[in-house]
Amino acid sequence: MKFTDLFTKTQKDIKDSGSANADLLVRGGYVNQLSAGIYTYLPLGWRVYKKIEEIIREEMSAAGGQEIFMPAMHPKANWEKTGRWENLDVLYKVVGQLSGAEMALGPTHEEIVTPLASRFVLSYKDLPKYVFQIQDKFRDEARPKSGLLRTREFMMKDLYSFHADEKDLDRYYEIMKNAYFKIFTRVGLGEVTVLTYASGGSFSRYSHEFQAICETGEDTIYLCEKCNVAVNKEIIHEQKSCPECGNKDLKEKKSIEIGNIFKLRDKFSKAFDFSYLDEKNQKNFVEMGCYGIGLGRLMASIVEVLHDKSGIVWPNEVAPYKFHLVNLSGAQEEAADLYEKLKAKKVDVIWDDRDERAGIKLSDADLLGIPNRIIVSPKTISEKAIEVKRREESEGKIVLLDKFLKEI
Amino acid sequence: MKFTDLFTKTQKDIKDSGSANADLLVRGGYVNQLSAGIYTYLPLGWRVYKKIEEIIREEMSAAGGQEIFMPAMHPKANWEKTGRWENLDVLYKVVGQLSGAEMALGPTHEEIVTPLASRFVLSYKDLPKYVFQIQDKFRDEARPKSGLLRTREFMMKDLYSFHADEKDLDRYYEIMKNAYFKIFTRVGLGEVTVLTYASGGSFSRYSHEFQAICETGEDTIYLCEKCNVAVNKEIIHEQKSCPECGNKDLKEKKSIEIGNIFKLRDKFSKAFDFSYLDEKNQKNFVEMGCYGIGLGRLMASIVEVLHDKSGIVWPNEVAPYKFHLVNLSGAQEEAADLYEKLKAKKVDVIWDDRDERAGIKLSDADLLGIPNRIIVSPKTISEKAIEVKRREESEGKIVLLDKFLKEI
Repeated sequence: MKFTDLFTKTQKDIKDSGSANADLLVRGGYVNQLSAGIYTYLPLGWRVYKKIEEIIREEMSAAGGQEIFMPAMHPKANWEKTGRWENLDVLYKVVGQLSGAEMALGPTHEEIVTPLASRFVLSYKDLPKYVFQIQDKFRDEARPKSGLLRTREFMMKDLYSFHADEKDLDRYYEIMKNAYFKIFTRVGLGEVTVLTYASGGSFSRYSHEFQAICETGEDTIYLCEKCNVAVNKEIIHEQKSCPECGNKDLKEKKSIEIGNIFKLRDKFSKAFDFSYLDEKNQKNFVEMGCYGIGLGRLMASIVEVLHDKSGIVWPNEVAPYKFHLVNLSGAQEEAADLYEKLKAKKVDVIWDDRDERAGIKLSDADLLGIPNRIIVSPKTISEKAIEVKRREESEGKIVLLDKFLKEI
Repeated sequence: MKFTDLFTKTQKDIKDSGSANADLLVRGGYVNQLSAGIYTYLPLGWRVYKKIEEIIREEMSAAGGQEIFMPAMHPKANWEKTGRWENLDVLYKVVGQLSGAEMALGPTHEEIVTPLASRFVLSYKDLPKYVFQIQDKFRDEARPKSGLLRTREFMMKDLYSFHADEKDLDRYYEIMKNAYFKIFTRVGLGEVTVLTYASGGSFSRYSHEFQAICETGEDTIYLCEKCNVAVNKEIIHEQKSCPECGNKDLKEKKSIEIGNIFKLRDKFSKAFDFSYLDEKNQKNFVEMGCYGIGLGRLMASIVEVLHDKSGIVWPNEVAPYKFHLVNLSGAQEEAADLYEKLKAKKVDVIWDDRDERAGIKLSDADLLGIPNRIIVSPKTISEKAIEVKRREESEGKIVLLDKFLKEI
């Protein structure tokens, strides 16, 4: 892709919003804010999103998940069954002008997937089953904040698991924990991600959060620096499996929640009378789990954790492009030639072919955060070479062009 | 995939809805109806959807389209600008319980993409530009009908093009026509798809529909069987480029609209004051085009056009699986062995491993409509062979197993 063909431009006139992810993603032309908590993904941002999505899809499929796609618009009756039509204040309600039908916009899909699964799960032979979707969700956040971390419309991966008993739910819950760590490692957050018990509420025994440690995070967790276990305030560290350390070793850390997993048990299967017949032909309620990751939130978290003062620093696996080619004044033809050669080799490259000053091009390269920068200048040309620099390094190195093209 | 692992089962107890696509897709476990005009895509249906989506994405990208993703939830102000907040009766309106913000659910995205493009298109040097998305849309159809052909929530590909002048819009409009024919050919509807002028209204000069000829279609078109040009009633055939034929050669045909393309001209760029500076530094309104395909509608149209009395007949490129392996009683082990060998060769195969009668398995195979059926039975085993049958053929043929595995 050439900069001059790209739909977007980098944006200079963006006021600080107080949120690094929003400011950098908007300035880089990754996203555009349409309204409070509502964003458009632009071509560069959609490329990042698609890479994150594919990683999540691969890991959910590897864990036996079958992909489906449930509607965003839900009948009122389903939400009345669980009492959430009246009690969930973030629920958007819609009445059709022509149909008059009252509908909810789904902030989650237990109310839909439970009766759906009950059509197909009849006996113990039909269990366990795992379905997931990657789908647009809606929450009327009173005060959307922190850029793409807390929005009113958001893409989410939600997997739902169905089991004959608690033991099988427990087994799969551990498989999901591992799948989540794989995902967060692949998107570049492996080193900062810790598992915590969800804070507060009667659900806390049955749910965990994946938290990415980050100075700008909204959440507070307590990390034992001795054994690297994270807990929240209400969980006594000694009760965990760490005899050689205790609450005295806990350090307060800021973090961002990047995923959560819940043992729903029979909460929803009871509400929808979702049962199966066991080997003795006895009726039992199905045990359920649910497992969520917000994709925009994850993308924003990567930006929050990995940016520096000059811009975004994308990990390789989710970067919109792998290489960012920049030509300085007087090297346009040579850059064009290199760009064509890289494209012929199927190298994932974007070329800043604008007629702009070096300073502007290099600061835009830092802002965009593509992992490898290639500079072609009259000086490098005279040496039959290019300069190659990793985004996170301060110094590039001169590489002979022939050698670079041979090895890439 | 094994049938016994699949989330769904085929459904017997489904009443006729009067719509072949809905009945076959629901019975096959491809989709599930949640509410009037609202469907869930189940694992088999989502595989078909994804194949259609990828074909459309490839052809839109080949035509220079850059993929973005705009929100479903739109500010009221955008729809007031064009008068459609008050005048569009299928528009869903939402008021947040907490925020109180009035929003629309997008049935289309001109109101969003026009101000978005105006941020990035400033001068003639920024034109032309093409963006597309594949995204969930909402229309409050008073009476949803014809299964997945007319729904209240639907996935749509919409591409928007931006041009300096009408001539450039005309040029790209022809590129899109060709891209659409490529798409409809790749999904298996090439032979039945014709281009017609959109019927009625002031827009008819500026828009075309792609119609798939189909006995159960809702639309009526007039096809000249001499020159294969399709027209609607209001267009006089002689005015087209067919000197050797005329209105007398027109035959009435039923058809389904599977795509449409519009020259919007400056309708929306005027509403949003979207202009660019030309070479002489003069302000001009941007010329726009838009190009839509409903993905669920296209999937349903494929079913309508290609089914027979026993079930669906998927074209190869969009089939959920390429091979449907069926073992008859007494050949379970041999089928299991073949299934593992096919999987090792990365063959896209589903195995009906149920302990069911042959009649049920074969009629389910016809219902599901996977292009190639493989039967393993004690009889074929005794001949070291399998029976292979194309879905649309009535007779299979016996093929030696070794030969089949070698050639696949």
